[in-house]
Amino acid sequence: MNKYLKADEWCIVEEGFDPKNHRSSESIFSLGNGRMGQRANFEERYSGATLQGTYIGGVYYTDKTRVGWWKNGYPEYFAKVLNAPYWNGIDVEIDGIQLDLAVCEVSDFVRTLNMREGYLERSFVATLSNGNQVKVCARRFISMADKEVAAIRYAVIPLNFSGEMVFTSYIDGDIKNQDANYDEKFWDVISTDSQKGEAYLQSVTKKTAFQVGVGIKYAVTVDGQAYVTSDDDTIVREKYAGNRVSVYGEQGKEIVFYKYVAVLSSMNHPADKLLDNAKVVVKNAFQKGFAQLFEEHRSEWAKIWEHSDITIEGDVEAQQGIRFNIFQLKQTYTGDDARLNIGPKGFTGEKYGGSTYWDTEAYCVPFYLSTADSAVTRNLLVYRYKQLDRAIENGMKLGFTDGAALYPMVTMNGEECHNEWEITFEEIHRNGAIAYAIYRYVNYTGDEKYIEEHGLEVLTGIARFWAQRATFSGERKKYVILGVTGPNEYENNVNNNWYTNKIAVWCMKYALECMEKVKAANPARFEELIARMKFDCQGEVAHWKDIIANMHFPEEKQLGIFLQQDGYMDKEQILAADLDPAIRPLNQHWSWDRILRSCFIKQADVLQGIYFFEDEFDTECIKRNFDFYESRCVHESSLSPCVHSILAAKIGDMDKAYSLYLRTARLDLDDYNKEAHEGLHITSMAGTWMSIVEGFGGMRVKGGELHFHPAIPESWKAYSFKVMFRGNILNVIVRHGKTVIFNEAGEEVEVTVNGEKRRVAKNSKLEI
Amino acid sequence: MNKYLKADEWCIVEEGFDPKNHRSSESIFSLGNGRMGQRANFEERYSGATLQGTYIGGVYYTDKTRVGWWKNGYPEYFAKVLNAPYWNGIDVEIDGIQLDLAVCEVSDFVRTLNMREGYLERSFVATLSNGNQVKVCARRFISMADKEVAAIRYAVIPLNFSGEMVFTSYIDGDIKNQDANYDEKFWDVISTDSQKGEAYLQSVTKKTAFQVGVGIKYAVTVDGQAYVTSDDDTIVREKYAGNRVSVYGEQGKEIVFYKYVAVLSSMNHPADKLLDNAKVVVKNAFQKGFAQLFEEHRSEWAKIWEHSDITIEGDVEAQQGIRFNIFQLKQTYTGDDARLNIGPKGFTGEKYGGSTYWDTEAYCVPFYLSTADSAVTRNLLVYRYKQLDRAIENGMKLGFTDGAALYPMVTMNGEECHNEWEITFEEIHRNGAIAYAIYRYVNYTGDEKYIEEHGLEVLTGIARFWAQRATFSGERKKYVILGVTGPNEYENNVNNNWYTNKIAVWCMKYALECMEKVKAANPARFEELIARMKFDCQGEVAHWKDIIANMHFPEEKQLGIFLQQDGYMDKEQILAADLDPAIRPLNQHWSWDRILRSCFIKQADVLQGIYFFEDEFDTECIKRNFDFYESRCVHESSLSPCVHSILAAKIGDMDKAYSLYLRTARLDLDDYNKEAHEGLHITSMAGTWMSIVEGFGGMRVKGGELHFHPAIPESWKAYSFKVMFRGNILNVIVRHGKTVIFNEAGEEVEVTVNGEKRRVAKNSKLEI
Repeated sequence: MNKYLKADEWCIVEEGFDPKNHRSSESIFSLGNGRMGQRANFEERYSGATLQGTYIGGVYYTDKTRVGWWKNGYPEYFAKVLNAPYWNGIDVEIDGIQLDLAVCEVSDFVRTLNMREGYLERSFVATLSNGNQVKVCARRFISMADKEVAAIRYAVIPLNFSGEMVFTSYIDGDIKNQDANYDEKFWDVISTDSQKGEAYLQSVTKKTAFQVGVGIKYAVTVDGQAYVTSDDDTIVREKYAGNRVSVYGEQGKEIVFYKYVAVLSSMNHPADKLLDNAKVVVKNAFQKGFAQLFEEHRSEWAKIWEHSDITIEGDVEAQQGIRFNIFQLKQTYTGDDARLNIGPKGFTGEKYGGSTYWDTEAYCVPFYLSTADSAVTRNLLVYRYKQLDRAIENGMKLGFTDGAALYPMVTMNGEECHNEWEITFEEIHRNGAIAYAIYRYVNYTGDEKYIEEHGLEVLTGIARFWAQRATFSGERKKYVILGVTGPNEYENNVNNNWYTNKIAVWCMKYALECMEKVKAANPARFEELIARMKFDCQGEVAHWKDIIANMHFPEEKQLGIFLQQDGYMDKEQILAADLDPAIRPLNQHWSWDRILRSCFIKQADVLQGIYFFEDEFDTECIKRNFDFYESRCVHESSLSPCVHSILAAKIGDMDKAYSLYLRTARLDLDDYNKEAHEGLHITSMAGTWMSIVEGFGGMRVKGGELHFHPAIPESWKAYSFKVMFRGNILNVIVRHGKTVIFNEAGEEVEVTVNGEKRRVAKNSKLEI
Repeated sequence: MNKYLKADEWCIVEEGFDPKNHRSSESIFSLGNGRMGQRANFEERYSGATLQGTYIGGVYYTDKTRVGWWKNGYPEYFAKVLNAPYWNGIDVEIDGIQLDLAVCEVSDFVRTLNMREGYLERSFVATLSNGNQVKVCARRFISMADKEVAAIRYAVIPLNFSGEMVFTSYIDGDIKNQDANYDEKFWDVISTDSQKGEAYLQSVTKKTAFQVGVGIKYAVTVDGQAYVTSDDDTIVREKYAGNRVSVYGEQGKEIVFYKYVAVLSSMNHPADKLLDNAKVVVKNAFQKGFAQLFEEHRSEWAKIWEHSDITIEGDVEAQQGIRFNIFQLKQTYTGDDARLNIGPKGFTGEKYGGSTYWDTEAYCVPFYLSTADSAVTRNLLVYRYKQLDRAIENGMKLGFTDGAALYPMVTMNGEECHNEWEITFEEIHRNGAIAYAIYRYVNYTGDEKYIEEHGLEVLTGIARFWAQRATFSGERKKYVILGVTGPNEYENNVNNNWYTNKIAVWCMKYALECMEKVKAANPARFEELIARMKFDCQGEVAHWKDIIANMHFPEEKQLGIFLQQDGYMDKEQILAADLDPAIRPLNQHWSWDRILRSCFIKQADVLQGIYFFEDEFDTECIKRNFDFYESRCVHESSLSPCVHSILAAKIGDMDKAYSLYLRTARLDLDDYNKEAHEGLHITSMAGTWMSIVEGFGGMRVKGGELHFHPAIPESWKAYSFKVMFRGNILNVIVRHGKTVIFNEAGEEVEVTVNGEKRRVAKNSKLEI
C-alpha cells in the first residue's frame, strides 16, 4: 500500500514531487478516450524512471511467443497492445539548460487529474542549476468529442530572470515495448515530415501492418499575444519529426506553448490517406484552438457523468475511489467501435498484452449495460460474434470438431495468444462467461432479436464445445469435466470444478432454450441457422440433454456446500485469517506447488457460480458457501472482492460487504498490491461499480424489471447511482432508513423494492 | 523410424553418404571416454547440415532461465552441458579446392563405429569440381587409457592426379550452444598460441569460470615416410589457433595427417598451469604415436567388454543393439570421478541441458553395479551425498524446513535447474529413486558401511521431506500426498499418485531401518549423526511411523489393481491398441490438456512401483496391474518399455517381453522417435541391459545372493551376460532349455536358479 494522493471528490491530486511515485502516477493520471490513450508522462524531457506509454485501441503486434517448454497447441505469438509513436513531447530549454524534473529543484508541484472535466494538469516551480526559476503549468486532454485529437497547453513564466526559451515539440517514432519478448522493436517509420509550424510522422507495425499517422501543430502566445517567428522551425531526424521555436521570455510574463495533436490509424483511414487526413484533423483542431476543443471535450464528459456517476456522502475516499473507477473505465472503452474491447490495463500500461479477457463479459458488461446505451454492450457481444470462426478454429487446434467453439483466454483478433497450458487449454470456464454475457444483455435490454441475429450461433458453438469436453465416467455413471482450471487460478488441472461444470450445463440449457425461442419466433431464420451450423436437432439435442441431466457436481453434504472440485476436502483446511500476514500475498511468498496444494483460493470460484445463478439457491445455502469459501479466499485477484462483496450484501453481512468493497475501490489509488506502476486494473474497476449497485443497492433484473434491495454501509450518510434501463433513467438514492428512486427519463416504470412491486411515474420519485 | 545402418555384431556401419542422415549419424557414431566426448562431426570442413558438438564432463554454463510466465521458486538459470572448444577440425585443400562432402561428389562412403575397439572410421572417394579424385580414410578415438587425449589419423590418396594438399589443423574457440536460451555465447577465449607443429587455446566459461586448455600437435607422413617442412605453419586468429601445412601429393601415394589432441580442464588442473600441462600431455601423446596410443586405448576397451559384454546368438540386430547401448553407456560414464554423472544425452547432443536426472538412480545403477567395480556406483551415490546441502536448500526454497531434502529434477552442481512447475516442484518421486539407489547399492554389494558413512544422512533428509510433504486428510483420516506429477508425465498435479505415495512410505521405512542398523553397529557414529542432523528420535520417528501406518493408497478394488492416482477411473477408458496410429505419438499430435485428461500413460508408473517392490506382490496381482496398465501405456518415454519388459518376463509373457525389449534396444539405431539427430538416449540404454539381465535372465539380489529365473525369446538361439557380484564374476549363458553359469572369478558362490539353491565352484560351471 502506498497512500500519497490527496482525497478529493472529483480530482486525483498529488502534491509535491517524489520521483519514486512517478511511475505509479503515470498510470493513475493516465488519459484516454476509448480510441487512444496515454500514460501521464511529462511533456518535457524527464531523465528519471518513467514508463513511456502511448496506445491506440486495436493497433497491436504479434510478438513471438516466449516459453520455457513448448507444448502442442501453444500459439505462435502473443498479440500485444502496442506502445505507439509518442506525440506528447515538448522539450523545453531555458537559457540553454534543459528543463528536467529529475535534475532541477522542484517546488510547489501539484498534479491533478480532473475527472469531472477529463483533463490532466500539472504545475510546479523549477529552479535550474543556474538559479533561474520558472513556473510551469501544463494541461492536456485527449478529446472525447473528437477521438483523433489531443491538445496540450504548456505555460511557462520566468520568475526571477528574463531569457531565451526554446520549445521543441515532436513526434518520436522510435518506440519500444518494455515487455517485448525478444527485445525487438515493433514499428517501422515510413515517413517523417516537418514544415513551418507543423510536423508529421507515419509508421507501420511490423508483421501486422497497421499504419498510424500522427500530426502535430503548435501555437505560441507571449503574455497573451500570439507569437510568430520567421525562423526555420523544422526538425527531422531518423524516426522523429518536430518543430523548434525560440522565444524570449521576460520575467513575470507567461509564455504558452499550445500543441495540437492528431492521431489517425489505418483502422479508420486508407493507409495512403493517413497523412493527408491527419493534416486536416490537426488543422481543424488548431483552428478551433485549445479553449474550444476543451469545451467540446468537457461537455462530452458531462454527458458521461450524467449517466454514470455514483455519489457517496460522508466518505470522500470512497467517493474518489468509485469516480476514479468509473472515469478510467469510460476512458478505456466507449463502445462505439465493435472492433475494440476492454484491456485489463486499458491504455495505462503494457502488462497482460492482448486486449480481451473473460473480464469483459464477467465483470464489465453490467457496468456498461447500466451506464451507457445498450448499443455499447451490444458491440462487446458483436466483437465475440465476429470472432466465432476463430474460436471454432481454436477448438479444432485442440482437437474439437463440428463447430465446437473455444474462445481464447487472451486475444486481440480472435486468435488465442496465451501460452501457459494450465490456463490456455484448461481455463475453459471463460467460454461460459461469453454465453452468460449474451444472457445478461438480453435479460437486461429485452433485445431478444439479438439471439437470432448473432447470439444463437455463438451459444451453439459454445454448447458444442461443452458437449465434447464433458466425458462420461464409467465409475460414477455421470458426466465429468476433467483437467480444468477454474476461476480460482490457485488450482490447476483439477477435475470437476463445480463452477465450470455448472456453467457448462447452463450453457447447454440456455442454448437449447434460445433455439426453442428462435424456432418459435422466426422459423425461417431458425432453419437457416440450423442449416448453416449443420446442427443435428435430434442427436445433438439429445446428447446435450443427457449431459444436463447427468452432470456430476461435487458437494460436501455434511457441510452443505458445493465443492470447488473433486478432492478439495483432502486439503489441510486452514483459514486465511490464520495465515501469518508476513506470507501474504501468498503468490509473492509461496512456491507454486504449495499454493496449489493449499486450500487457499485466489478469487471467487464456487461463489462466482452462486453469484451468476443465485436464484437457484436459498439464502441459507448461499450463506453456508459464503462462510466456507470467504474464509479460505485470499483475494489475490483484483476480480475477487467484488463478487464476495455482492454476496455478503445479499446475505445481509454489510460489514463484510463494506470491507470487501474497500479492497477493490481504491486498489490502484492506494496501490494495495504495489503494482500501480505497471498500469491500472481497469476491468476490475467495473467490479467496484457492481459492488455498489448490485451489492449495496441489491439491483437485479428479473422478468424484464428492475429489483432493488438497498442497504448502506454504516459509515456512509448516503449514496446514489443511476441506471439506464429500457428507456428509463433511474436515479437511486439510498440513505439510512430511506431509499428514493427518481424516474428521470422515460415512461412510468415498475420496480420491485425489497420484494414489493412499486411504480415510479415519469419524472417523479418513489420514496421508501 | 529410419533404418539405414547395416547390421553387424560389433560395428555400426553406414554405407553410402546421404546428407539427410548425417546429423543422426553424428549422434550415433559419437565417441567419448567418460571425461569428454564428441559428436561424429567430419574432420574436414562440411557446409551441409551438422550439429557440431564437443563436450567435457562437468564443464557447464548457467544459462539464464527462459520462461513464459514466471512462478515463485523457479531457478534463475538452467545449467547446461557446454559445447566446448572444437578440436576435431582438419581442413583439407586439394589444389586450391576445399574438400567438403556437401559440395563434391562422394562415393564408396563407409562410416564405421568399431565398438569392440572404440574407434570411429570413415572412408570415401571424393571427386572434386575439377575432376580430381581422392580417397580418404579417417580414423579417430578418444582415449580410454588417457582421459585427456584424442588422436586422429587422416589419410588421403590422390587417385587420378598429383597436386598440392594443404592441411589446416585447428582449435576453434568460437563456439555456441544451439540451445542457448538467449542466443549468447558462453565462452571467452583467454589465449591462442601457435608454434611450429603445435597450437594451443585456452578458454574460460562466462559466469561459471571453468577453464579449458586444448593443445594440438601434428605429424605428416608421405608414402609412409615422415614429412617435415621448414615453412612457417602457424596460424592464429581471433578465438582460433592452428597449423597449416602444404604437402605435394603424388598420384597413388598416401599422405597421412596425424593430429594429437590434449584437452585439459580446470576441474583437474590449476588454471594457470592448464596450457603448460596441455603441452606435456600432447607432447607425450605425439611421442607415443598413433599406433601405441590406439593400442593402449583398445586394451582398455577389451577390459570393459570383458566385464560387460552381452552376446546374443541368432539375432544380429539385437546383438548390435545391446552392444551399442553398452558401448555408449561406457563412453558416457566410467565412474572414476564422483563429480560427474550420466547425462540423458551423454556427450552426443545438447538437449536436456544439465547432466543429472533420476534416470541415473532408477535406471543406470543396476547396469554399473553388475558391469563395473562397485566403486563406480558408489561414486554415483557420493555425487548425491555431496549435494545434500544443496538439496536441503532446494527444499527450503520451496518452504520445507528442518533438514528436509528435495533433490533437484535436473542438476549440474546440486542446484535445481528445471523450470516447469509441474515437474520442477511436483515430480518429487525423484527423491525416492535417490534413496532407492542407496538400497540397491547396499543390497547388491553388501557394503553396509556406506549407510553410516554417507547414506543415512541422505536417507534422513529425504524421509524428512516426505514427512512434511504428506498431509493429513481430515476427510479420509489418512495421509495424502497432493499435487504431484508421477513418473507418468502425462498426468500433472494429481493427488495420491500410487507410486509416489508408495516410494514415500518406503523411504521413511528404509530410513528408520537404516537408523536402527547404524545404531546397533556403530552407536558412536549414530549419536554423532543424530546430533549433526538434530534428529528428534522420538517426535520424528513417531511421525514417520504414523505416516507409514496411515498412508492412503488409491486402489480399484473390483479390478484388483492399484490406481495410478485418485480419480483415474473417471477417465474414459480406452486402450492404446485402439488408438488411430496416425495420432501416435500422442505428444506430437494432441494438445497437452487432451493428453492430461486421457487415460494414456507415457511411461511405467504404477508398474515402476511394482518393479521396485515386486516382493510385496504375488504374480496374479502383478499380472492384473500389468495387463491393465500395459494396455494403456503408449511408451512415449524411452525409459518405459524396459520396466514393462522386465515385468512381462516376470509374469511369463515372453512375447510381450521381447516386443517391449525391441522398442528400447534399437531406439536410436533405428531412430524410432525421429530424434536421434538431437543426440542419443543414453540413460535409457541401461534399461535395455536390465531388460535382458533382470527381464530375460530374471536376475535378482536377495539376502546377499544372486537369483536367476532364465527365459529366452523364441527367436534367439542363446544369449549370455556377465555380472560382477561381491568378488565373483559370473557368466550366464541361456539357451532354450538350458542355462549355464560359469564362475569365472572368485570363490565358490551360491546362486538360486528357478527357485533352487545351487552352488558354483571357483572356475567351474553349473548347468541346468
